[in-house]
Amino acid sequence: MPSQEVVLAIDIGGTKMRGALVSRAGDVLNRGEIPTRATDGEPAAMKRLADLLCGMNDELVGVVPIGIGMAIAGTVDPETGLFYKPPNLPTWHDTTPSLDLGAHLGLPAWVYNDASLAAFGEYVFGIGSGTENFAMITLGTGIGGGLVLNGQLYGGYRGYAGEIGHLVVDSTGPQCACGGRGCLEMMASGTAMSRIARERLAAGEPSLVRKLVRGDLNKIQAEILVKAEGEGDQLAGDVLRGAADYMGIGVATIRSALDPELIVIGGGVSRNLHLFFPRLVASAKTHAMNVDKMLCPIVPTVLGDDAGLLGAAAMAWEKLESQTNGN
Amino acid sequence: MPSQEVVLAIDIGGTKMRGALVSRAGDVLNRGEIPTRATDGEPAAMKRLADLLCGMNDELVGVVPIGIGMAIAGTVDPETGLFYKPPNLPTWHDTTPSLDLGAHLGLPAWVYNDASLAAFGEYVFGIGSGTENFAMITLGTGIGGGLVLNGQLYGGYRGYAGEIGHLVVDSTGPQCACGGRGCLEMMASGTAMSRIARERLAAGEPSLVRKLVRGDLNKIQAEILVKAEGEGDQLAGDVLRGAADYMGIGVATIRSALDPELIVIGGGVSRNLHLFFPRLVASAKTHAMNVDKMLCPIVPTVLGDDAGLLGAAAMAWEKLESQTNGN
Repeated sequence: MPSQEVVLAIDIGGTKMRGALVSRAGDVLNRGEIPTRATDGEPAAMKRLADLLCGMNDELVGVVPIGIGMAIAGTVDPETGLFYKPPNLPTWHDTTPSLDLGAHLGLPAWVYNDASLAAFGEYVFGIGSGTENFAMITLGTGIGGGLVLNGQLYGGYRGYAGEIGHLVVDSTGPQCACGGRGCLEMMASGTAMSRIARERLAAGEPSLVRKLVRGDLNKIQAEILVKAEGEGDQLAGDVLRGAADYMGIGVATIRSALDPELIVIGGGVSRNLHLFFPRLVASAKTHAMNVDKMLCPIVPTVLGDDAGLLGAAAMAWEKLESQTNGN
Repeated sequence: MPSQEVVLAIDIGGTKMRGALVSRAGDVLNRGEIPTRATDGEPAAMKRLADLLCGMNDELVGVVPIGIGMAIAGTVDPETGLFYKPPNLPTWHDTTPSLDLGAHLGLPAWVYNDASLAAFGEYVFGIGSGTENFAMITLGTGIGGGLVLNGQLYGGYRGYAGEIGHLVVDSTGPQCACGGRGCLEMMASGTAMSRIARERLAAGEPSLVRKLVRGDLNKIQAEILVKAEGEGDQLAGDVLRGAADYMGIGVATIRSALDPELIVIGGGVSRNLHLFFPRLVASAKTHAMNVDKMLCPIVPTVLGDDAGLLGAAAMAWEKLESQTNGN
């Protein structure tokens, strides 16, 4: 029986690690996930992840993994694989998850920032296919971004390009953990929405949100705000509209800087975007240059949660092929 | 006697048009300039420019122009040559200056936005040579920008990328002619500096500036503010520092989005930049991500006023060579 080659695609977040066996055409042959348990440290996590992947591979017959592509939440050096002060995985600073996993499995491994790979996934397998220039903004607990420019994943000089969450959208805004101030992530991310709602509730404003979290303001999340807004709650609506307005400013800035063919919105919180998508688009129009030809479609992801995973697979396939061509 | 091939490089601004005969190595063999007289219309201007260039060529022996590269202030479609609602040349909307000049002279002609070509000039002949990714910000009466990414002038989907003057740096700022609000150009350009100083003087604030313009507040320009600041004037210092702070925010945003190897500051007003360069850099550091590897040098232009002109020459040479290679 002929064997089928696959790559192992990995998406590592602060709370869970996902893996998939992905064919050259982007078919997911098997998938699985386990908790990250960030505090146990990177070596333990990579050991558990290797076990998961071996198990997933054993479930299939005639499938041969030939490489690993890893998407990871945080700043990572694609050349050395070194992970840099990841906000959600603090003890993983200065580790090399992709190389360590590759060593466990005896496979070549490549790593890149998850939001950039989400863009690359949309480019190779999703809504960006057929375009040459687009930007992706991932709206989740944080805000990430990725750029495909002139048909290539654009990493910048050191591979750190596309940090759209750290565009300054309000220079008087609060300090960001990144060191800046008034970053998009501080004004429009899921975490920002929770913080802003919490502050207003703590100041005594009436809102249905208080009841939905049974008084525990630390439980406020974007989806709760969406639920409350759907029932006509003023405070929740304000917070969502404010976030949409700031997202629109970020979109306008990306348009002015890069004139992309498309702007793709993805990320966990964006699943609720239908509620404030029109507001986001209106804000982008308010803040963007009105050269009419510069308007570009602002569209939702089609790969959803799999964008980063499939981008990691696409990267691994591309690297493997360039190695083959180089030989 | 052997003849030498040159290109005709043109830089068209709202007040003057400059031309130069430029060799493949970037040597300027002759140069000249005439007033734009924007209100006379584009056909008259291109006729006068053609006459200027013929005269400049006649002054040299054995020099043969083989193409035209044009840098122009405003939004222009590099494919069709159509000029789009130029703020400083309003009657030139929907004209094709490069094609019209090319027709007068019987030469192939290419056109691009002047700030983008300034970046390309620095890349081919200036401080950007040897880099692959950098951004240029031109600080003059307006603020423009240009991007060289992966070793190419990056124009975006429609050739309108690099509009760094229209990054939103203060979402509560004044309306910009571009249609946006709180654009960098509205907060930090030469025109913005004049406006802000004028408003404060009109409100009665004491300042040496009033005396320097003999009471005519419409005469306030960036260089007058620099002069006043040099003599310890508080208001002028405030205005310059404020502009530098906003420039720093723009620089921080460009860094987060693009991770360039270098950020180059050029443009007429930037000649005075030594006065607020440290402030600009400090503001960029305040607003940029503190991933220490992301800090990149912020440097002044080395081509100065010739950046756009030499970029136009470099573009024409590149186009001519790609035609030759294509044959």
